[in-house]
Amino acid sequence: MKIDGKAYRSIWAEDDGKTVSIIDQTRMPHSFVTHQLTTLEDAAIAIRDMQVRGAPLIGATAAYGVAIAMRKDPSSRMLGDSYDLLHATRPTAINLRWALDETANLLRPLPEAERADAAWAHAARICEEDVETNHAIGKHGLGLIKEIAAKKAPGEPISILTHCNAGWLATVDWGTATSPVYQAHDLGLPVHVWVDETRPRNQGASLTAWELGRHGVNHTLIVDNAGGHVMQHGMVDLCIVGSDRTTASGDVCNKIGTYLKALAARDNGVPFYVALPSTTVDWTVDDGIREIPIEQRDGTEISWMPGKDAQGQETSVLICPEDTPVANYAFDVTPSHLMSGLITERGICEASKAGLAGLFPEKAKAA
Amino acid sequence: MKIDGKAYRSIWAEDDGKTVSIIDQTRMPHSFVTHQLTTLEDAAIAIRDMQVRGAPLIGATAAYGVAIAMRKDPSSRMLGDSYDLLHATRPTAINLRWALDETANLLRPLPEAERADAAWAHAARICEEDVETNHAIGKHGLGLIKEIAAKKAPGEPISILTHCNAGWLATVDWGTATSPVYQAHDLGLPVHVWVDETRPRNQGASLTAWELGRHGVNHTLIVDNAGGHVMQHGMVDLCIVGSDRTTASGDVCNKIGTYLKALAARDNGVPFYVALPSTTVDWTVDDGIREIPIEQRDGTEISWMPGKDAQGQETSVLICPEDTPVANYAFDVTPSHLMSGLITERGICEASKAGLAGLFPEKAKAA
Repeated sequence: MKIDGKAYRSIWAEDDGKTVSIIDQTRMPHSFVTHQLTTLEDAAIAIRDMQVRGAPLIGATAAYGVAIAMRKDPSSRMLGDSYDLLHATRPTAINLRWALDETANLLRPLPEAERADAAWAHAARICEEDVETNHAIGKHGLGLIKEIAAKKAPGEPISILTHCNAGWLATVDWGTATSPVYQAHDLGLPVHVWVDETRPRNQGASLTAWELGRHGVNHTLIVDNAGGHVMQHGMVDLCIVGSDRTTASGDVCNKIGTYLKALAARDNGVPFYVALPSTTVDWTVDDGIREIPIEQRDGTEISWMPGKDAQGQETSVLICPEDTPVANYAFDVTPSHLMSGLITERGICEASKAGLAGLFPEKAKAA
Repeated sequence: MKIDGKAYRSIWAEDDGKTVSIIDQTRMPHSFVTHQLTTLEDAAIAIRDMQVRGAPLIGATAAYGVAIAMRKDPSSRMLGDSYDLLHATRPTAINLRWALDETANLLRPLPEAERADAAWAHAARICEEDVETNHAIGKHGLGLIKEIAAKKAPGEPISILTHCNAGWLATVDWGTATSPVYQAHDLGLPVHVWVDETRPRNQGASLTAWELGRHGVNHTLIVDNAGGHVMQHGMVDLCIVGSDRTTASGDVCNKIGTYLKALAARDNGVPFYVALPSTTVDWTVDDGIREIPIEQRDGTEISWMPGKDAQGQETSVLICPEDTPVANYAFDVTPSHLMSGLITERGICEASKAGLAGLFPEKAKAA
């Protein structure tokens, strides 16, 4: 997508064939800083310190990390070491593991002299596939937006609520939940996005608001508490969120608070869709609420809020008494019956076992 | 309630008969600062700058403001001036107007020499009545907690979720939503409170967490997004929230986000009660969603977050891009059908026209 008129991806290979560039997302929204990754360690730090985040982008960064390592030392020992180092950065990230396995399986049988070029080409392919997947999700979601637009007066805004950042910064490009929005905007449809702040890590306020603003998409930041009110008053035409993990029956585990928005959407007759690449589907799990363990993260993510002070310094402030006990549940599960449908790279389906199996019969059967 | 073992109210008259003390709530939770109000202007500033907040406490402070003025100058001109000055501090606060009207109506017919003592006695009576009302609310709500406790193993915690600060700091003492909790705690029942952070002004994180902690009540701070998850997993026995304004049919206008918690409670079979003094009921309004206009406050309440930095300095930080458009809806309306009941000073009733009229027939009839 564009940043003030200039096209960007969240990760890109430089022309020298040995350097990869990323946008440091820990500095957003207050500073736009890019880093050049020239060593395996640079790539590991970028993932571990969350300079890059979002499952697809983590996978792409890991694949490029191996490629960078292979350029310097294409030995099998380095292949194993780079796998181990990168995997340890965020051991629970399924996409990271997947990208590393794919890369290692491809490179291991090759002669050393061919590994570096193959690794670079493979990392580039992972990126292209992500872009294609997200573009396809956007194309299908765009149909929903066009249907809503057709029922409105010309020029009347189509308002879409989203939660967290399932935007282009979480992927290589387009994003998942934002892909239909960007495609509608680029076609000239008057979309407007309600951006949930998304406490505790504020990915809505710091990332989604930033990327929509830089691309020129009309949007308004609200607190997570406000979603029910705006739906109650007819100010939302459509909700689209992302998914961190989807069950075979269509339950969606996503950023904490997603479930509350799905409840409000149902109560007010607002369509609620989840945009997801099929790689987020765990075909071995059915009941998301019972079967998916919810990660508890450090309480300081709630009690300390990062930002920029009036002097322009990036700092953090404590927002509760120092001795307040805090619980920080990172995700929640939205049951499939609350959703209008799932937007995947192969089309839109009912959020159900039958719906997903209809679009992905080979994966449903294999599970 | 107690602050580290010492009993406090949110406002109290000093023994000199001309000074009133308050806790400066704008400094919470990081500093505990009390102010002595010795002039009419002090009282006006305390209300205008939100050193005191919460409808009952604002009313009590205004009544004491008139009393302070009468001690210095009991003329009818001063009575009128003090009314005007105090009323202008927060012109939309219904309780402020009510307290001032009551006070002025009482004082105007009196000889000047009697006005100061009468004003002080009247302000004290407003405070005592608020304490009695809240204590009665707590006694009725305590019954609900005892019923839940009776179904649990001895010592097993009873978990209550609350939103915003309907605590003793918003009233003269006890609070509304917190009154049943304090009474249960003081009886030795093992209550635990899930404290919603309550963006954007963070009254949960800064006030409710503070007052529960200082009184010794077990509690855990969570983000507003987490309420659905904890209810989904059986970790909440009961929700109790306050009300800023209640319709004659039992709809409740309360801090933004209350509605989302009511939806989650219904979806998970968790009892959802609203604790309210009958003074919050507007007997002329029925449909809260259609008839109650929702105040939009300044967007900087969302984009700038106050707190204390690592050096101990109280400051604010910007949490989104500087040019991000923000909408700040202060309240939402929870429709009565989502509630298990209303806890009032006269008992618990169904959230409905019949329920409220049953407990307050004289008020329902007069409307």
